[in-house]
Amino acid sequence: FHAEWLVGFLPSHCARVFAATKPNMTENGLGHRERVLNVDTMNPNVKRIEYAVRGPVVQRAVQIEKELKEGVKKSFTEVIKANIGDAHAMGQKPITFFRQVIALCVYPDLLEDKFPEDAKNRARRILQACGGGSLGAYSASSGIEVIRQDVAKYIEKRDSGIPSNPDDIYLSTGASDAIVTMLKLLTAGEGKTRTGVMIPIPQYPLYSAALAELAAVQISYYLDEDKCWSLDVGELRRAVKAAREHCNPRALCIINPGNPTGQVQNRQCIEDVIRFAAEEHLFLMADEVYQDNVVVELASFHSTSKCYMGECGFRGGYMEVINMDPEVKLHLTKLVSVRLCPSIPGQALLDLVVNPPQPDEPSYATFIKERTANLHILSEKAKMTEQVLNTVPGIHCNPVQGAMYTFPRLTLPEKAINAEQEQAPDMFYCMKLLEEMGICLVPGSGFGQRDGTYHFRMTILPATEKLKIVLEKIREFHKRFTEEFS
Amino acid sequence: FHAEWLVGFLPSHCARVFAATKPNMTENGLGHRERVLNVDTMNPNVKRIEYAVRGPVVQRAVQIEKELKEGVKKSFTEVIKANIGDAHAMGQKPITFFRQVIALCVYPDLLEDKFPEDAKNRARRILQACGGGSLGAYSASSGIEVIRQDVAKYIEKRDSGIPSNPDDIYLSTGASDAIVTMLKLLTAGEGKTRTGVMIPIPQYPLYSAALAELAAVQISYYLDEDKCWSLDVGELRRAVKAAREHCNPRALCIINPGNPTGQVQNRQCIEDVIRFAAEEHLFLMADEVYQDNVVVELASFHSTSKCYMGECGFRGGYMEVINMDPEVKLHLTKLVSVRLCPSIPGQALLDLVVNPPQPDEPSYATFIKERTANLHILSEKAKMTEQVLNTVPGIHCNPVQGAMYTFPRLTLPEKAINAEQEQAPDMFYCMKLLEEMGICLVPGSGFGQRDGTYHFRMTILPATEKLKIVLEKIREFHKRFTEEFS
Repeated sequence: FHAEWLVGFLPSHCARVFAATKPNMTENGLGHRERVLNVDTMNPNVKRIEYAVRGPVVQRAVQIEKELKEGVKKSFTEVIKANIGDAHAMGQKPITFFRQVIALCVYPDLLEDKFPEDAKNRARRILQACGGGSLGAYSASSGIEVIRQDVAKYIEKRDSGIPSNPDDIYLSTGASDAIVTMLKLLTAGEGKTRTGVMIPIPQYPLYSAALAELAAVQISYYLDEDKCWSLDVGELRRAVKAAREHCNPRALCIINPGNPTGQVQNRQCIEDVIRFAAEEHLFLMADEVYQDNVVVELASFHSTSKCYMGECGFRGGYMEVINMDPEVKLHLTKLVSVRLCPSIPGQALLDLVVNPPQPDEPSYATFIKERTANLHILSEKAKMTEQVLNTVPGIHCNPVQGAMYTFPRLTLPEKAINAEQEQAPDMFYCMKLLEEMGICLVPGSGFGQRDGTYHFRMTILPATEKLKIVLEKIREFHKRFTEEFS
Repeated sequence: FHAEWLVGFLPSHCARVFAATKPNMTENGLGHRERVLNVDTMNPNVKRIEYAVRGPVVQRAVQIEKELKEGVKKSFTEVIKANIGDAHAMGQKPITFFRQVIALCVYPDLLEDKFPEDAKNRARRILQACGGGSLGAYSASSGIEVIRQDVAKYIEKRDSGIPSNPDDIYLSTGASDAIVTMLKLLTAGEGKTRTGVMIPIPQYPLYSAALAELAAVQISYYLDEDKCWSLDVGELRRAVKAAREHCNPRALCIINPGNPTGQVQNRQCIEDVIRFAAEEHLFLMADEVYQDNVVVELASFHSTSKCYMGECGFRGGYMEVINMDPEVKLHLTKLVSVRLCPSIPGQALLDLVVNPPQPDEPSYATFIKERTANLHILSEKAKMTEQVLNTVPGIHCNPVQGAMYTFPRLTLPEKAINAEQEQAPDMFYCMKLLEEMGICLVPGSGFGQRDGTYHFRMTILPATEKLKIVLEKIREFHKRFTEEFS
């Protein structure tokens, strides 16, 4: 066949054709003038984004790991990362059934091999729903129809039969993708009519980052640390009233279970929030929250990254939209079409999460055993974290009720608060903890906190023995830090 | 363990707690007032987006498929989709080695089974580079380091040893993700200083959609259909000069091989484009193009979706940035961090594409056989498509040199052009072709075309026998359509 075909199709050959290109222009052509794209000319909204979860402390942690590999001597031999909710990286094992089904989908020749029959049936069912029977085909933009049906059934079952419509389900790349899409749809107006979005403080910085990127107005409402990070409608009212002076509040985001704070709001609270959103005419965006008899517009988000499965790397997730204007839904569908579709292995994994092995299937016993074990370990680690941290003078840790995070409060000595002009005091603290102890946490300032209070976020995910070390090292460091700056 | 734990961790239980929530507000609370989010209040930039590849013709095709399933009688028994570059959906088989390695990574117990040793070694190497040795862990935001090194080596080899820096490589979710990210970075200013971006007409509508979303200015330059869709620097000059009157042109996008047009630009042309970009101080964005001695700022994009592998569903890809301002690169890294990371199975697949089996490895022979077969079939189908379409009076088809698309020009009768007020004439044509023949193509108006010219885009991906049917049906339909409106 033709050589042009190789050029056109094989990237490794295609580009060679141009490889000898020599534009032959003035030397150092670039050095003599400013770049097209520089910090002064780049998108100012992007410049304003802050993203602490992968910020300076984490970047320094990566450097230290390299230094350790190169033989640099430190008082510790490894960096323990408790900065991100990444269960598998911390040693949690994948659920066998999930991985068997995905492997069968990836390489269907394995259907001839020794695998449990239910795993094979599940793989056949997913492949049948894929274009050309391959995980390598695009799906509909909102995701594979069969999987959206499974998600709807899962929601229905969870909510005691209240119907859920597969057409309201959009599969996504993790939950982040869907949250950004919803915020994008909601953003409009200029100046005093610019869209405002209410988010909790502390918050997961995806929200503040997306709002900065969209130049939407962030409306902060504070969670009450003294009441285990509870959400108070009085505070919502205060925040929305103040915001109406300078923007158009249009949406309310609630994160439950909390991130970074790890609390679970009670039913009464969620009811109050729904009433508040209806009264104030706000679109409700809810991480993992759901309710029936909904009289507000709502989008809820879920992903395969957390819970007992912890499969972050597959980037699976979904969003359910409720009471969305049908015309807006057409625009939403168009908007998600531009990215074509979420990863198909991620979609397949989501299907298994919403539709796990059933009691009469051969994989059920192992599945329940693995899931229970994962949950049990998390529960133990949550209790241990709370107990140990609360024995340290100057650290106060609320109960870790949900999610896999804790956001303990630090009492820092005055000198430490005044010592560093460039860094927030808790950034200074976390950076020093990393340098001296090899423990990587995220400073509270990256999530927002009441002025004059200091926190860090840590995950409870490191293996039990490692988590013990982490907690002991924090105890030792906090004592030393307090003495040094007193 | 505690019941709260189930609430916190198990989504199926977590949400039940709230399921009985009854806000008990006025009935039809929603019916009595406007929704928060409606077409008047939604993001106007999103409203302006158009995305033909998954537009009305495709949506109607999905409906027709459902109708056929339900037993509705039509003159055809299946819809053949030639609207999207989705190789596997059209029956192309995946490359065995790629799928073996991914299956081994997904379910490492298979490492004990009968698989080629090189596939096992490759899987072990990838898993070792993953957090916790699992595809289920997050990676660095720019992608797994080992894989970025492999991409850099691949580029170096392709370009005869000219070095490539892994720190300039960002792995992405397909190429779309990276292209949107770059356009986002480049967008700034208001009114006459608003960023303008030069894109070819016809173009792949991802570009126009992203520019609409960002409210950046689209600067159209026309490809020359009479010269096989070649790119002429004179036309670039005309377009940029006209644009400087009303915006700030800052970037030039070239799509090579062309989509939807399927041409490959020659080396001289690419050299001219590079000189033009340098002279006009434009940032160059290039689909699958690369060059050494670069004196412009450049981002190039690549994905696992096309070529002989066609693995769209894995959403793997990368971007290489060259001569990017180091400060801007920090912002780019932060921006991609907000989405955490691309799908890990997609990253793993990309690794295999840039680093395929080597001649001394056991899987090499099969790999080459499969790749050659895929390329050979594509080459044959491209020739057949061009030959058959050019026998139809009123259709003119340029040679299909690269990519897997063709964008033939239609001569439409006057009455058909004037008949439809609501639809573009080629939309009318494609919709009728779908209804009468069950063939799904995309109208040229979705990609842009010179005023008064009409086209459709079709992929050459359907299996050879199906492609023959597609081409015959188009021939028959075009004749009938011309008669009906003459």
